Amino acid sequence: MPEHDSFPISNRNRLRRRHERGRFDRATVYDILDSAMVAHIAYVIDGQPYCTPTGFWREDDRLYWHGSSASRMIRGQSAGVPVCVTATHLDAIVLARSGFHHSVNYRSVMAFGTAEVVTDVDEKLRLMDGFVDRLYPGRSREIRPANAQEVKATSFVVMPIDEASGKIRSTHVSDDEEDYDLPIWAARIPVRQVLGEAEPCPRQLAGLDVPAGMRGYRAERPLDETLLEAYRLHYPE
Amino acid sequence: MPEHDSFPISNRNRLRRRHERGRFDRATVYDILDSAMVAHIAYVIDGQPYCTPTGFWREDDRLYWHGSSASRMIRGQSAGVPVCVTATHLDAIVLARSGFHHSVNYRSVMAFGTAEVVTDVDEKLRLMDGFVDRLYPGRSREIRPANAQEVKATSFVVMPIDEASGKIRSTHVSDDEEDYDLPIWAARIPVRQVLGEAEPCPRQLAGLDVPAGMRGYRAERPLDETLLEAYRLHYPE
Repeated sequence: MPEHDSFPISNRNRLRRRHERGRFDRATVYDILDSAMVAHIAYVIDGQPYCTPTGFWREDDRLYWHGSSASRMIRGQSAGVPVCVTATHLDAIVLARSGFHHSVNYRSVMAFGTAEVVTDVDEKLRLMDGFVDRLYPGRSREIRPANAQEVKATSFVVMPIDEASGKIRSTHVSDDEEDYDLPIWAARIPVRQVLGEAEPCPRQLAGLDVPAGMRGYRAERPLDETLLEAYRLHYPE
Repeated sequence: MPEHDSFPISNRNRLRRRHERGRFDRATVYDILDSAMVAHIAYVIDGQPYCTPTGFWREDDRLYWHGSSASRMIRGQSAGVPVCVTATHLDAIVLARSGFHHSVNYRSVMAFGTAEVVTDVDEKLRLMDGFVDRLYPGRSREIRPANAQEVKATSFVVMPIDEASGKIRSTHVSDDEEDYDLPIWAARIPVRQVLGEAEPCPRQLAGLDVPAGMRGYRAERPLDETLLEAYRLHYPE
């Protein structure tokens, strides 16, 4: 992969250890981000760090999230502040023969940049549709359009990604060589985040079909795979 | 519930909006924390916020996590620094008749306090066993004990919880009253994080039974329920 398809490595995103788990290429970092519905966002107000879970999505090298214009997070980020956005998938728990080698399999991305609130109203309208359609392809055209009060009450934050690092553990039990002969049960137990059966709104009008854009949201399907597919339907290469 | 069974409310953990989602009682906050394997930890180094996903657990009003003594997070937290620890469970996605009312169901806790590295070696040994047993009841007695090098290479961080706030959304589609008559498909789709079938280490000795403490880790069982049960087996009331 050409060098320009990787994120630059600085003191912020350099891995201090476990270098074999590091991923800096955009393809891998993007897939981890685009498979996630919720990220955790670290930001600082008056020296106090906050870690807020929130829905988010990516366009090119920019991350977006939104919130109430009255929320602490949005007010704290309006001025252009450094943030760290982290998305994490837990894939397995790993039980080794020593406590030291107990682990989990995961895919995570930490992305760094400066966040600021989007003030342009046309761009806000584009983002309101974009967030819905990124998750549920085509849905913005099927729902009741946003009204002026909703646009005012909703703030979007944009963070161009300055640096990012992915981290992946996807192997099996990894014990010290001399421990494999010990009579200790050791195993990897997969973890999956899956969808259930859709529960229609109790006040749903009769005779409505599931929209075509929702066909990927099938019961028992992994959420990460569903979200990545939806992402690629909305943002084709 | 008596007042002393709730966390104090300050400017840090006060909810700015959606007050009906707030939970400050210890019973609810504890359950959300004790059902989670991974938390995201926000901390600041030289003005830059970081958001690191990591395994963690609770004892009374203290949170613990660990890492390599060489990691950026551990070195950044050794001196006693303000942190915010957030645990989040995604329970459903909610598709409403307007973009504004699209939502997710979730349970989350933000916990605030000052983190510092545990230096007492006996306490470190207790925590090494405690972390394993909190997840996998009784397992610390079944595995190869930690050696001196492992104790040295592993750092534990303790954060007494000064304040915490839980937030829960667990309802169905909630639309504006005048929108319910629109011919728009609206639904709640449950999301569950579930365990798979245990995959024994390929170098496992023959004839080893699954330990009794692992019987709760059954395929298709929700991880949060499994972790909460394991927690209560290890820390009975």
